[in-house]
Amino acid sequence: MKSFRKELWFNIPGRRGFVNITPQVEAALHESGIREGLCLVNPMHITASVFINDDESGLHHDYEAFLEKVAPHEPVSQYWHNRTGEDNADAHIKRQLMGREVVVAVTEGRLDFGTWEQIFYGEFDGRRRKRVLVKIIGE
Amino acid sequence: MKSFRKELWFNIPGRRGFVNITPQVEAALHESGIREGLCLVNPMHITASVFINDDESGLHHDYEAFLEKVAPHEPVSQYWHNRTGEDNADAHIKRQLMGREVVVAVTEGRLDFGTWEQIFYGEFDGRRRKRVLVKIIGE
Amino acid sequence: MKSFRKELWFNIPGRRGFVNITPQVEAALHESGIREGLCLVNPMHITASVFINDDESGLHHDYEAFLEKVAPHEPVSQYWHNRTGEDNADAHIKRQLMGREVVVAVTEGRLDFGTWEQIFYGEFDGRRRKRVLVKIIGE
Repeated sequence: MKSFRKELWFNIPGRRGFVNITPQVEAALHESGIREGLCLVNPMHITASVFINDDESGLHHDYEAFLEKVAPHEPVSQYWHNRTGEDNADAHIKRQLMGREVVVAVTEGRLDFGTWEQIFYGEFDGRRRKRVLVKIIGE
Repeated sequence: MKSFRKELWFNIPGRRGFVNITPQVEAALHESGIREGLCLVNPMHITASVFINDDESGLHHDYEAFLEKVAPHEPVSQYWHNRTGEDNADAHIKRQLMGREVVVAVTEGRLDFGTWEQIFYGEFDGRRRKRVLVKIIGE
Repeated sequence: MKSFRKELWFNIPGRRGFVNITPQVEAALHESGIREGLCLVNPMHITASVFINDDESGLHHDYEAFLEKVAPHEPVSQYWHNRTGEDNADAHIKRQLMGREVVVAVTEGRLDFGTWEQIFYGEFDGRRRKRVLVKIIGE
């Protein structure tokens, strides 16, 4: 069994944003030399998500609007977590709704994806450098 | 290390529906010959989920009602994604809430499940053939 | 390839609660002797979650309040699942929102975590003994 590990770094200039990280994950897979196995991709932070969906800006707007509707940022005083001096309680909730991680099958050296599957980094508390871990095991 | 891959196909006649796919996943595991490892099950589409819960029709009604309450299909014009000519933005949101994939432990040649765990395909934009990927790695 | 399996048992005295289970998962990893691989952690029940987030009691209050707002326990008669004699339909919904499982990278014999990542057992229908499965594969 082989294993491979790589960190990807992102710095989203706003509080929230979505970035298609499929090319970076594919590059990591290529670098690993693994042909059959599983690829785990997760943020190493708890106010961000890695998820798989469509690379369509209208949909990303809809995700943003949905998440703000169900877990609004303001007023920050509505959340007990923010009594610690933070203002990001909503980001911790949004990340749970979108999910932490994805596990992707690796087949014949490629991410085993349907036509429209793309991997996104979802930031809910940005404006600083944050890491995504890619861990691949297989042969 | 062994790896095994299989596609399962589904065609849900309505827009939304839940199908218990545990027997098909168990059959794939048996076919793989793998006794110890991990089994990944995910739709190869971005408006569907694979999730684990109870095979109880009342609960499935409750999931449907909950998802329609928080991310209603109508009016389709409320979603920017639907300006592309699609009408399935709600399906992309519902799939995120129910999750994309499950990873199941394989122990002694079986899905390592508690009493009530069953695997479901959750369709949110049906009426066409769609695929589920089963990828198993182990020994 | 090595594989390792362990069950952890919990009995949450109230209906709902969050428990940091990181030390138990780390102990299982140490016991496994696996240095590189993947670690799956999931409840063997369908009204509980395993998730990764912050060990901060205010945030846990916010999760509880959020989940009760979007999928309230009362009135229990609002859910068809409860016509079976159960009163835990809301718990099945809450578990989907928080997620079933986590998959964690294992690197150099440790859970490959960012600074604040901690693993939690999230109970939504407690007051009885329930199990969490830890399955680790690797080398």
